[in-house]
Amino acid sequence: MIQPQSVGIVTPQTAHFDTPLALRSGGTLPSYDLVYETYGELNAERSNAVLVCHALSGSHHVAGRYADQPDSTGWWDNLVGPGKPLDTRKFFVIGVNNLGGCYGSTGPLSINPATGKPWGADFPFVTVEDWVDTQARLADRLGIERMAAVVGGSLGGMQALSWTLQYPERIGHAAVIASAPKLTAQNIAFNEVARQAILSDPEFHGGNFYEHGVVPARGLKLARMIGHITYLSDDSMGEKFGRSLRHGKAVYSYDVEFEIESYLRYQGDKFAGYFDANTYLLTTKALDYYDPAFAHGGKLTTALAGASADFLVVSFTTDWRFSPARSREIVYALLHNRRNVSYAEIDCAAGHDSFLLDEPHYHAVLTAWFDRIKV
Amino acid sequence: MIQPQSVGIVTPQTAHFDTPLALRSGGTLPSYDLVYETYGELNAERSNAVLVCHALSGSHHVAGRYADQPDSTGWWDNLVGPGKPLDTRKFFVIGVNNLGGCYGSTGPLSINPATGKPWGADFPFVTVEDWVDTQARLADRLGIERMAAVVGGSLGGMQALSWTLQYPERIGHAAVIASAPKLTAQNIAFNEVARQAILSDPEFHGGNFYEHGVVPARGLKLARMIGHITYLSDDSMGEKFGRSLRHGKAVYSYDVEFEIESYLRYQGDKFAGYFDANTYLLTTKALDYYDPAFAHGGKLTTALAGASADFLVVSFTTDWRFSPARSREIVYALLHNRRNVSYAEIDCAAGHDSFLLDEPHYHAVLTAWFDRIKV
Repeated sequence: MIQPQSVGIVTPQTAHFDTPLALRSGGTLPSYDLVYETYGELNAERSNAVLVCHALSGSHHVAGRYADQPDSTGWWDNLVGPGKPLDTRKFFVIGVNNLGGCYGSTGPLSINPATGKPWGADFPFVTVEDWVDTQARLADRLGIERMAAVVGGSLGGMQALSWTLQYPERIGHAAVIASAPKLTAQNIAFNEVARQAILSDPEFHGGNFYEHGVVPARGLKLARMIGHITYLSDDSMGEKFGRSLRHGKAVYSYDVEFEIESYLRYQGDKFAGYFDANTYLLTTKALDYYDPAFAHGGKLTTALAGASADFLVVSFTTDWRFSPARSREIVYALLHNRRNVSYAEIDCAAGHDSFLLDEPHYHAVLTAWFDRIKV
Repeated sequence: MIQPQSVGIVTPQTAHFDTPLALRSGGTLPSYDLVYETYGELNAERSNAVLVCHALSGSHHVAGRYADQPDSTGWWDNLVGPGKPLDTRKFFVIGVNNLGGCYGSTGPLSINPATGKPWGADFPFVTVEDWVDTQARLADRLGIERMAAVVGGSLGGMQALSWTLQYPERIGHAAVIASAPKLTAQNIAFNEVARQAILSDPEFHGGNFYEHGVVPARGLKLARMIGHITYLSDDSMGEKFGRSLRHGKAVYSYDVEFEIESYLRYQGDKFAGYFDANTYLLTTKALDYYDPAFAHGGKLTTALAGASADFLVVSFTTDWRFSPARSREIVYALLHNRRNVSYAEIDCAAGHDSFLLDEPHYHAVLTAWFDRIKV
């Protein structure tokens, strides 16, 4: 045991791929870049790699910070590092920005070689399965034939699950956290409202807002506000903000009165200042489409029959966006197929966002599971 | 027992009030109109009146239909009529469009006498308590000193509760259905996103869109879409729409793919075609502000000490917008004050919207409760 430490200063790298990539949506990307980071050392047997897949607004920057940016701590820094649950003294950890993203991997902000202008709305739809294909190619590039584990929360969990189906021979373990085997109608509905907010913003310009020198900030802000509500539990929002009034009483105005309004507006504005609207649209659609059982008449047990990894499935009691019932569907289907599955339903008040927090029980489960993985 | 019947063809009436009305928000309305409908006959003792209060997007048109509009059935028609739970052979039922509304009562669409132009964004903020004051004046006008009952669902339930506190001597019974003693932070958050959608629509023009000949349809549509998600349960949405794809498979487009998208867009567009954006803003604020315990240090038991009515409180198991726990808060506070309270928690899959449906158990509870009321 050591005190948990940061991985320290990190530097993203770029891998360029020239082999055309056929996408589920029908298009082909002739070439593309993936931006990624790694933490720890790949061992001589190349057997200790763990891929971390990101969710809706995440990135390749999982842990550590950038030399010139003191506030640039990675989004899962509490999980990854020496002495942390995903211990970089044992594992070689990889974070990658998904294709279609806005943090450096090829996406709507990139130049479309056919036009010399940003792809914008013309960037092809990408799916969870496409992302896994690109991640497998990145593994090839890094000389990794088989991953010790693939890990992800929320949409990242869908990628981890998909790895076990698309490349069962290339993955030893999969951790599927705060995720689901497919979205519910309500999940899709929230995504749809977020999309409509962006699509109907006059400054979206059909997705080609870059050439107008504007961003659909109003739409992106609304999308983020809606999202944020669903990432928190009713109770955690109540504990954090309750009905606290900024002025101590009603002032009868559409300016901020309740503290929860202030929080949501701030989060929305901040997000609209750095995230790309086209990436947001693409990513919500990837979420909506993901449904490995669809090709098997809706039978998840059939869909998961080919998985051979050892699984950890984790859900959080107050997560109503991806409820424990959704995780249990995955667990039941895996058990039906006699797979090795550990399942933890963590009692945490923070809703869907719990998977990003360092709740002690949750981290203890992860620590124990990673400890057991032989590399 | 008779077969339930419609109240038939109905005609709205208008009551004009010249006595200035002081509002909680500080302003005063010099005069105003209230549009209302009545069903059944006021008895000689004037003791059989039941006021029905409407929710966010409701109106005075509770039951029956208009002579020239075959599709104009009232919003609670399944509840009100001869042989129905709120039986118009026994009761004189009154529906009224709230002040600030957009169905004929004075509101943002009305002409501001000070300017000769529509009030628009300058219409003063109105509260649940203000509405109850105006409803009491309407009762005066109709010669009704004491209501047999006041009934409402959701925001309407808040008005029923407020009647028992503002005019305890003027109300015999109160039915508070699918309601809450105050909104949670999450409730306010959803309202806030809806408001931001409207306020940030370029065609809102600071609330004075009437003079520009436009309506903030995009914002109003988004607001309604968000609302609709919260009126239904995850399960009912799943049963109704599931993940059904319009084209049987993913077509990779931002047009409608999933049936739930079609439903939400349709409902949103329809609503944006008839509802007033300023009324929507005002009404969500009235919801947010309602908190009778606020003036009593947050103690609901103290706040409800003055209520003398006999209560019926009804909640629905799958209502996550106004959950049963919120109704139970009201029940506990009333029991603490040794009030007569009947409480029913109805097992219904339809979420918050359940209060509008004719779920048999729910209607049986209402029938029994109304039967017991002596007039």
